[in-house]
Amino acid sequence: MDEFELIDQIFHRPEESTPQVALGIGDDGAVLNVTVGKQSVVVMDTLVAGVHFLDSQPPDSIGHRALAVNLSDIAAMGSVPRWATLSLTLPEVNGDWLNGFADGFFDLAHRHEVALVGGDTTAGPLAVSVTVGGEVEPEGALRRAGARPGDFVYLSGPIGGAAAALSSTEAYGDPDLKRALCWPQPRTALGMALGSIAHSAIDISDGLLADLGHILKASGNLGAKIEADKLPLFEQAVALLGYPGALELALGGGDDYELCFTAPEKRHQEILATGHRLDQDLFWIGRITEHGGCSVHGNGISLDTVSPGYQHVWPG
Amino acid sequence: MDEFELIDQIFHRPEESTPQVALGIGDDGAVLNVTVGKQSVVVMDTLVAGVHFLDSQPPDSIGHRALAVNLSDIAAMGSVPRWATLSLTLPEVNGDWLNGFADGFFDLAHRHEVALVGGDTTAGPLAVSVTVGGEVEPEGALRRAGARPGDFVYLSGPIGGAAAALSSTEAYGDPDLKRALCWPQPRTALGMALGSIAHSAIDISDGLLADLGHILKASGNLGAKIEADKLPLFEQAVALLGYPGALELALGGGDDYELCFTAPEKRHQEILATGHRLDQDLFWIGRITEHGGCSVHGNGISLDTVSPGYQHVWPG
Repeated sequence: MDEFELIDQIFHRPEESTPQVALGIGDDGAVLNVTVGKQSVVVMDTLVAGVHFLDSQPPDSIGHRALAVNLSDIAAMGSVPRWATLSLTLPEVNGDWLNGFADGFFDLAHRHEVALVGGDTTAGPLAVSVTVGGEVEPEGALRRAGARPGDFVYLSGPIGGAAAALSSTEAYGDPDLKRALCWPQPRTALGMALGSIAHSAIDISDGLLADLGHILKASGNLGAKIEADKLPLFEQAVALLGYPGALELALGGGDDYELCFTAPEKRHQEILATGHRLDQDLFWIGRITEHGGCSVHGNGISLDTVSPGYQHVWPG
Repeated sequence: MDEFELIDQIFHRPEESTPQVALGIGDDGAVLNVTVGKQSVVVMDTLVAGVHFLDSQPPDSIGHRALAVNLSDIAAMGSVPRWATLSLTLPEVNGDWLNGFADGFFDLAHRHEVALVGGDTTAGPLAVSVTVGGEVEPEGALRRAGARPGDFVYLSGPIGGAAAALSSTEAYGDPDLKRALCWPQPRTALGMALGSIAHSAIDISDGLLADLGHILKASGNLGAKIEADKLPLFEQAVALLGYPGALELALGGGDDYELCFTAPEKRHQEILATGHRLDQDLFWIGRITEHGGCSVHGNGISLDTVSPGYQHVWPG
């Protein structure tokens, strides 16, 4: 068996044929059936070895993560994921590594009913590029723009764990922090449910302040008042780094892949009920304000950011 | 202006908003309107510096080529291209290089009415990954499978030029050969026109024998008899490399991005008329046969390949 056949065999799995896939892997392109009356959503993200993942990371976690970060974008759009294409750039063809990568990729794909329909394998420095397509009701996509003054701000889970895992060997050794880094769980069910409730949404990839900043900017240079004591942190991050250190990573660390969304105050109970129904933790963390900038207060902390982006230097 | 703003400014061009694009660059994903009654087609290809293009190549030709190889796949599917996403991995942010790259990318995109709707920019070794989406009539996609014994085999242009350009500095200095390598022209208009005429199609990326071999295998292990004297070669390649050398590169060199397709003999005149109407050269090069393997005969050459793939060693 040559390299192409090996790669073909590993990624061309029979179960990839769903009713939506008219023609899957193996031709110049895939052909997909479109659901009548829907809009389509497309997202694309690339992970590069040494930048977005560690060379030493288990290959199944790399396969998982490459798809997860894209499904997280799909979730932030309030979309139902349908298909994926995968471009793998490999320094060498290693069957064990590829099988591990594929296991991680397909386990997540199957859980989210996403069919791998095509892609590309090339020689070069290790990198993974994934495109995911989904569907939404017309005008039903969740956008960054749409937050309004008075909106409540929510998070779908604790943040700062992935960044904490990268901060030391000891932290990486903690199962919960390592899981946050290597096995992020895209919140697709929550995203779909929020389509008709939330005003705006984004997934946290660059850190809460930066990503909430994108919502504030896209929504017309609004502000936000975040309650520090409401921010969900990883206990282990606080234990290892202290509260200020864990808070800094929660605000600016990134790689969390939790959803940050805003919704009108009057829908608060409905949102809590949605989280309960989906068995999905939800955290109220603050409010949208009329004026620019994002501030974080409480627990003896007072952090005012002038611009709605990530302020890297922690004051005091 | 920071790096993100620069990249944003270069790639977020106002003209990218077409009626099909409900939401383009700037959110977690793009939202696209779908044409009622069509199937969608998705292709993805990655180019890596040092593998698929030369570091010294002008950036506009890299931008052009990254999109062109994907549009070539779209053409081979008989599809109308609609949208693209672009993932750029950059070792550094260089405004001049990025503007050149974007010029090459957008010039081709506009000529084919393709909207750039999203993507990703990351740090790492230079590489470009592009996904293109298109539309076809239901069951109208051109496939590799579908060739039948007796079908005529056609090419949309001369082959072996890109491989010749890579063979020596002198060859790279020839304008026609350099153009074949750096500025391949995807045959999308031809692909769309062939949807209702051709039995099978593929674009030549790995070399005629390998890619025609994919058609033969997908169509049930058929064979092909190719007439060597009908193969369109680049005059300059023959002049620089001699006839056997130019023929070898035509058969196995790759990177041609011409279409190879098969159609019933009775539609020969219709195919010639289609080429004439589109001002697109078309070359009859042989026939599909019942039995496995591909043979090339004529001009004193007799090349029988046992398997329907690329035979790298040129006999005699």
